[in-house]
Amino acid sequence: MPFSPLRFDEPNRTLWVLDQRRLPAEELWEDLHDAYQTADAIRSMRVRGAPAIGMAAAYGMALAHLAGDDPAAADEALRTSRPTAVNLMYALDKLRPAWGDTTRILALAEEVRSEIEATDRAIDLAGASVLTGRVLTHCNTGALATGAYGTALGAIIEAHGQGRIQHVWVDETRPYLQGARLTSYELQKAGVPATLITDSMAGHFMSLGEVDAVIVGVDRMALNGDFANKIGTYALAVLAHFHGVPFYAALPMASVDAALEDGATIPIEERPADEVTHFHGEPVAPEGFPARHPAFDVTPHRLLTGIITEHGILYPPFHERLRAAVNMPRPE
Amino acid sequence: MPFSPLRFDEPNRTLWVLDQRRLPAEELWEDLHDAYQTADAIRSMRVRGAPAIGMAAAYGMALAHLAGDDPAAADEALRTSRPTAVNLMYALDKLRPAWGDTTRILALAEEVRSEIEATDRAIDLAGASVLTGRVLTHCNTGALATGAYGTALGAIIEAHGQGRIQHVWVDETRPYLQGARLTSYELQKAGVPATLITDSMAGHFMSLGEVDAVIVGVDRMALNGDFANKIGTYALAVLAHFHGVPFYAALPMASVDAALEDGATIPIEERPADEVTHFHGEPVAPEGFPARHPAFDVTPHRLLTGIITEHGILYPPFHERLRAAVNMPRPE
Repeated sequence: MPFSPLRFDEPNRTLWVLDQRRLPAEELWEDLHDAYQTADAIRSMRVRGAPAIGMAAAYGMALAHLAGDDPAAADEALRTSRPTAVNLMYALDKLRPAWGDTTRILALAEEVRSEIEATDRAIDLAGASVLTGRVLTHCNTGALATGAYGTALGAIIEAHGQGRIQHVWVDETRPYLQGARLTSYELQKAGVPATLITDSMAGHFMSLGEVDAVIVGVDRMALNGDFANKIGTYALAVLAHFHGVPFYAALPMASVDAALEDGATIPIEERPADEVTHFHGEPVAPEGFPARHPAFDVTPHRLLTGIITEHGILYPPFHERLRAAVNMPRPE
Repeated sequence: MPFSPLRFDEPNRTLWVLDQRRLPAEELWEDLHDAYQTADAIRSMRVRGAPAIGMAAAYGMALAHLAGDDPAAADEALRTSRPTAVNLMYALDKLRPAWGDTTRILALAEEVRSEIEATDRAIDLAGASVLTGRVLTHCNTGALATGAYGTALGAIIEAHGQGRIQHVWVDETRPYLQGARLTSYELQKAGVPATLITDSMAGHFMSLGEVDAVIVGVDRMALNGDFANKIGTYALAVLAHFHGVPFYAALPMASVDAALEDGATIPIEERPADEVTHFHGEPVAPEGFPARHPAFDVTPHRLLTGIITEHGILYPPFHERLRAAVNMPRPE
């Protein structure tokens, strides 16, 4: 069993979640006992990362059944906790036919977990096969984000376990600092040698020949391979391209949006400006100074060396290969 | 007279300095009365920016003479306050022949200021002539850095005054946040419409076609045009090149190091890692996590559209043109 920020204790009707907002300063585990508490943990981002949110929602429904709560009300509370999370909807839809059957609900919740584990494992083994030397990553794509092994960061940790990589560069990932706070935490836990840098240093270390590959996660990918991911991903892709450094995106096929032909129409969430102008509530810019905070950017497929999925690595041209992979069954 | 972080009050034997470490939260003016207090203000970075440091040192020597202090001891204290600052040495060398002659020392200190003002003004007029639309800048290169009009930021403010530019993108400039703290402060004061972004967003806004030019300052330039500047400058140059966005460096010729043929041997100052792992003394990464903090990076001349100097704009090939400009007299 990998380290997970989600632990389900069925006999005690408890879901334990690691509060990610407090990392790395504090490792606070919180006990949840029903679907409403679980929905609140998702809404407040104590649980984050699309697959981890799906897993938490599945356990939240299991808690509802164990407590004898109304499943329709529990489902509604969970479904609205992060309305745009595809994995959340997937998990709840999967459990719905078993409403009322506690044994079956529990089995399906565990199936959600084991699907994520199997998907992550397949991604990580594929990803590890192409990573060597010194690898750079952005944001957090590890166990904290998926609840299992992680995607891009899982591949890095697997590659380190295989002796393939020596060192990891961790982009701090402004403004939310997921790299500094979460990826650093996971790499330290896994014993992988790593160094934290500001996002603005990645190009400098590439120019010195100290980066052998870049691997990032994916928020949403179009059928041609264009993809949205955490702000700063696009700049990394351009820098990697300029320096001839291989650039990989790792994702479960569930993150491919088959309704999108290309990335031009992927909507970019604009988050509050005070996440840029303030740090821990303290202003770093003059009072009232305008700021922008697009949470994501879109990287065009032509900057990608390869797409790492649970069905293996896809190389260009991506379009037909992605279309075929979208219809393959999930690994078990 | 432009806004300046340095105000010399001769009748009261006082140098007023704006404490830049406290900006933008607090506008604290501190009164200095001798060379030793001035040296301490430089050492502790309450005064920062190479030209501003030179100006402060000149006034520090003036204070020494007004107070009847030993000029050799005062010179030594100032000279060692930031040992690598070329402008500091220039100012002290300029004043040295007048030691003992208070009237002449005062005149020479004012001459240091007026040289910087004339140089900045020439740079800003040249720079403004090539800036249009929406301009992006990095770090702080304004009045706070030079004591007069500023270089890259002075050109931006001049271009706005001429109605040539509509909007400024301000890179926050991690890890020290000179952009968020100081450039934002100056632009707000000057009434120039501007938006703060994280360094990782610059590429995204270039890809959307929302950046018409980039202009940055220079810490040190080699004779072929390669130059060291605040970390993150190099990545911006690559991104601008990729998007076909003009990329300019603005500097006084005093920042060209005629002993350097190219940028390969420019030493990069490595600053303490805790400036990356901590924010206002609070950790953002796990305890003991390694970090790197190169304060500068080197941008190769081939990524530069033009070099903006007090003698006008130099276009490629830079080598012979820089060599000629190095020997021109300072503007008065």
